[in-house]
Amino acid sequence: MDALPPRGESELPTDILGAARDGLAAVRVRRPRIHCITNTVAQAFTANALLALGAVPSMTTAPDEIAAFAGGADGLLVNLGTLEPERRAVIRTAIEAASAAGRPFLLDPVFIDRSAGRAAFARDLAALGPAAIRGNGAEIAVLDTDADALALRLGTVVAATGETDLVTDGRRLAAVANGHPLMARVTAMGCAGAAITTAFIAVGEDAFTATAAAMVVLGIAGERAAETARGPGSFASAYLDALYALEADDIAARARVTSPSQGEAS
Amino acid sequence: MDALPPRGESELPTDILGAARDGLAAVRVRRPRIHCITNTVAQAFTANALLALGAVPSMTTAPDEIAAFAGGADGLLVNLGTLEPERRAVIRTAIEAASAAGRPFLLDPVFIDRSAGRAAFARDLAALGPAAIRGNGAEIAVLDTDADALALRLGTVVAATGETDLVTDGRRLAAVANGHPLMARVTAMGCAGAAITTAFIAVGEDAFTATAAAMVVLGIAGERAAETARGPGSFASAYLDALYALEADDIAARARVTSPSQGEAS
Amino acid sequence: MDALPPRGESELPTDILGAARDGLAAVRVRRPRIHCITNTVAQAFTANALLALGAVPSMTTAPDEIAAFAGGADGLLVNLGTLEPERRAVIRTAIEAASAAGRPFLLDPVFIDRSAGRAAFARDLAALGPAAIRGNGAEIAVLDTDADALALRLGTVVAATGETDLVTDGRRLAAVANGHPLMARVTAMGCAGAAITTAFIAVGEDAFTATAAAMVVLGIAGERAAETARGPGSFASAYLDALYALEADDIAARARVTSPSQGEAS
Repeated sequence: MDALPPRGESELPTDILGAARDGLAAVRVRRPRIHCITNTVAQAFTANALLALGAVPSMTTAPDEIAAFAGGADGLLVNLGTLEPERRAVIRTAIEAASAAGRPFLLDPVFIDRSAGRAAFARDLAALGPAAIRGNGAEIAVLDTDADALALRLGTVVAATGETDLVTDGRRLAAVANGHPLMARVTAMGCAGAAITTAFIAVGEDAFTATAAAMVVLGIAGERAAETARGPGSFASAYLDALYALEADDIAARARVTSPSQGEAS
Repeated sequence: MDALPPRGESELPTDILGAARDGLAAVRVRRPRIHCITNTVAQAFTANALLALGAVPSMTTAPDEIAAFAGGADGLLVNLGTLEPERRAVIRTAIEAASAAGRPFLLDPVFIDRSAGRAAFARDLAALGPAAIRGNGAEIAVLDTDADALALRLGTVVAATGETDLVTDGRRLAAVANGHPLMARVTAMGCAGAAITTAFIAVGEDAFTATAAAMVVLGIAGERAAETARGPGSFASAYLDALYALEADDIAARARVTSPSQGEAS
Repeated sequence: MDALPPRGESELPTDILGAARDGLAAVRVRRPRIHCITNTVAQAFTANALLALGAVPSMTTAPDEIAAFAGGADGLLVNLGTLEPERRAVIRTAIEAASAAGRPFLLDPVFIDRSAGRAAFARDLAALGPAAIRGNGAEIAVLDTDADALALRLGTVVAATGETDLVTDGRRLAAVANGHPLMARVTAMGCAGAAITTAFIAVGEDAFTATAAAMVVLGIAGERAAETARGPGSFASAYLDALYALEADDIAARARVTSPSQGEAS
C-alpha cells in the first residue's frame, strides 16, 4: 500500500465549501439527469429532492429500457432498499451501461446489515467501481473493517452517515456536522440525499470533494427546514423548499466541516 | 378527409370556461372513480390530486383484478412511466374492460421519445381508441407529425402540454396559458394532471372541451398554489389545497384560454 | 358459544384512555419496528406516519428477505391494497415468521368487497390468527355477518372504521368518534392508521384496548391537523406533525370514546 500523505495539510474545508457552492450552481445550470434505481418507498421524495435542487430524475427499472436510461443519464444511483428480484435483476446492466458511457454510479447499500443476501450482492456491486458508497456505520461495517479501509481497497469515496457524516477516500477525510434530528423522522431522507450526492459527483471534478460538498448542502437544507417546521410533515416540505432556495451565502454562513487536524472552516 | 370548419368561429373559450366550472362541480358531486395504471413514482401524488378534487382513485395492476377494477371505474388512465413488464402486461386488458363498459381512457405516453419499446407500445395503444392523448411536444412528435394530425388520424383529442398547453381534436383548437413554473419542479405533476383530465372527461359531454377545461383548472390551481408557496415542497401541498378549494369564481377570474382567431376569454 | 358478560360494565373508556397515553409513550421510548407489506401507493405515507410517531418502518417484500424482516420486527402489517402477485406470494411466509417469533400481525383487507380473489385470500389470512383486523363496514361484511361475529369466531379484535370507528373483540365494544372529514381526502390515511395500530398492539398488553387506543390517537391527530390545514395537502403534513407532537394532555382533552352503556369518557 502506498504511503499516505498526512491528513489535514490540504486546504480541505475551503475546497469543500467551494465545491458546495460550485456544485449547487452547476446542478442548477447543467441540470444533470440522475437515473435512480431505488425502492418504491423512496421514489417520489427522491424525485422531488432532485427536482427541487435543479436536477432531473428518471427511475425506470424495466429490463428493456434500463440500459438506455442509465447509459444516457449523467449519473446513476443504486439503492438496495426493499430489493425486489425485478429491480435487483437490472442493476448490473444499469451499472455496465453507465460505466460504458463514462458516468459515475453511487452505491447506497441500505440495510445490508439486516439481510445476508443484500450484503453479498452489495459486495459484488462494490467491486464494479462505484464513484462513491454511502451508508450508515452498520452498513459500511458489513463491507470492510472501516470506511477508510473500504475506500482504500476499492479506490472509491465512502460516506459514513450519522450525527456527523464522515467522508473519506482513504487519504482525505472530512467530517460534516450539519444536519438536524428531524431528518431521521422522514422516510427516504437518506435515499434522496444519496441521489443528490450522485448529482454533485456528476457535475463535479473530484468525487471526494463533491461527496463532502453534498453532505454539507443536505445538512444545511435540513437546518433551514427545521427553522420553520412544526414536525416531520412540515419539515419534509420545508426541506424541499430549502434545497430549492439555498444560496451560496447559506453555505458560507452555516457549513460545519472539518478535517482531523484543522479547525472548523467557518 | 372531410373539409374542416374554420377555426375560431365557435364560442370556444366560453364553452371551455363553462366546461371547467361544470366539470369541477360534477366531479365533486358525482365523485367518479378513476382507475390509474401509473408508475410507482406518481401513484401517491396522483391519488391525492384525485381525492383533493373529489374523485376516487384506484390503482391495482394485479392481473386477476385489473378487468374488474378498470371495467367498473368511470374512467381509465394509462400512464407509461417506468413501464415495468408486469404493469405493461395488464394495460390491454384494462383498456378492453373499460371500452366494453363504455368508459373513456386517456393515454399518457411518458418518455416515449427516450424509449423505442415504449414508443411502439404507445402506437399500439393509441390505435385502441383513447378519448384523449396527453403528452409534451417531444412525446406527441413520436406518434405523428403534429398534434392536429394525430387527433384527426385517430379521431381523438390531443393535449400537448408545455408553457402553453394546446388542446386539439383536429377541428377545434384551444391554447391554455394558465400554470406556474414550480409545476415543473414537483414530480408527478403531469401524471396527476392526466388523471384529473380523465376525471373531467368521465363526467363531461365532450372530450375536447373537458380536456381543455381540465388544463384550465390544473393551471389555475398551480397559480393559486404559487401565491403561498416558498418552494416546490410547500407548492405541492398548496396545489392539493387549491384543487380542493377551487371555486367557479377563480376560474372566471383567472382563466387564460384562447382559440386561434379569438382574444382571451377573460 | 360462551355466555357473554354484559357490555359496558367494565371501566372501558378509562382503560382505553390509559392505553392511548401509555401506548403513545411506549412507542416513543421502545421504537417498535413494524414490517409493512403494503401497497406502493401507501408506502411512503405509512413509513412517514410510523416515523412521526416514533416507530420504525421496514417494507421489503423480496422473497429471500421477507422471513428475516418480518420475523425480526415487533409487529407485522398485512395490507391487501393493489395486491400484485409478487407481494401476495410472500404474505404467508411473513405471517409464519412473525407468528413463530411471537409477534402480532394486523390484517387490513383493502377493497375485498370489490375483488373476489382478494376476498378469498383475506378469508384464508384471517384464519391464521391476526391480532386484529381493520376494515370499513363493506370490507368487514365480506368476512362475516358483522364485526362482533367475526371477532368471536376468530378470537380476534375487529376495528370497523367509519365516521365513528367501532372496535370489538366480541365481548367488549368501543366506539371512537374522533377524526375529521379531511382524513378521507388523503390517500393511505387508513393504511397508515393500520400501521400505527400495529405499533400500538406491538407495545400494548391487550389487543382490544391497544386497537381502540390507536383509533383515539389517530382521530385526535386528524382533529389537530385540521385546525391549521387549508386543504388536504397541508392537512397531510399537519397530520404527521400532530402524530409527532401529540401529548397525553391532548388525549385527555379530546378523546371521544364510549362503550354502549356508558357515557363519553370525557
